[in-house]
Amino acid sequence: MDERAEAAKKAALLMIPYGLYVLGTVDGDQIGAATVNWVTQTSFKPPLLAIGVKKDSHSYAHLKANGAFALSFLESGQKDLAFSFFKPSKVEGDTVNGHRFERHQTGAPVIAAAAAWVEGRTVGEVDLGDHACVVVEVTNAAKHRDARILTLEECGVKYGG
Amino acid sequence: MDERAEAAKKAALLMIPYGLYVLGTVDGDQIGAATVNWVTQTSFKPPLLAIGVKKDSHSYAHLKANGAFALSFLESGQKDLAFSFFKPSKVEGDTVNGHRFERHQTGAPVIAAAAAWVEGRTVGEVDLGDHACVVVEVTNAAKHRDARILTLEECGVKYGG
Repeated sequence: MDERAEAAKKAALLMIPYGLYVLGTVDGDQIGAATVNWVTQTSFKPPLLAIGVKKDSHSYAHLKANGAFALSFLESGQKDLAFSFFKPSKVEGDTVNGHRFERHQTGAPVIAAAAAWVEGRTVGEVDLGDHACVVVEVTNAAKHRDARILTLEECGVKYGG
Repeated sequence: MDERAEAAKKAALLMIPYGLYVLGTVDGDQIGAATVNWVTQTSFKPPLLAIGVKKDSHSYAHLKANGAFALSFLESGQKDLAFSFFKPSKVEGDTVNGHRFERHQTGAPVIAAAAAWVEGRTVGEVDLGDHACVVVEVTNAAKHRDARILTLEECGVKYGG
């Protein structure tokens, strides 16, 4: 791409709206909890999501070793919570990075303070870039309250382009 | 999933924010232009997007026959334009469903009134549901103006769950 197209590509891709989620993963006695925003549904039946997962992350290593995933849906106002999962995961008792987590059917950690969560397993991926497009099937979910999702825009953060 | 989990899954997935785009496709002398919302970036280098594409659609058939795609980014206020591409694609001269289109490097149609567009080719897919998760690489783009993207929320439409 020439410079003009490159700049246009960046500007266009930054128009895509994103919510914020904590991706919970597990491998043996290790758990991971990382904030992600590249998420879309890709099927109703079965319910599938595509998640862009950084290739050099613990989350991705966990998903490759053990396909279990959980996605905790953050609520407007939970910016600090979101930012705490940009750091490496540190577990102390039933907390990760200071936030209580739970484990349900898959063993992947769910952030207890989230408005809602879904969990399930990896069913496929397209692994062609710096992030893999991981496709997961949702097999369990819970909703704690009606909430507006926390967005990248609310956080004043850009991740895309 | 039991009923409670099914309802929670639906509610959670409907929290995901979505923009609206016209997916342009081409196969021989046929072109397709269909409004989609299941879009996320999934890599910076190369720039990849995942798009949920209905399996029984002309768009999907075109993408399988000829991997070229274009994604026109709609702007706040362009609800009528978005809705006109829920209908089958009808080409008359240089218009499709009444809206002027252009073709650039890939041959896939771009809606001239869109705020920005990207185009490129299909590079992979995960085909496991009623929609396929099609991964595309962006190889060209243009931006016509700064704009807020048209969202599903602005249109009062839900597509997810």
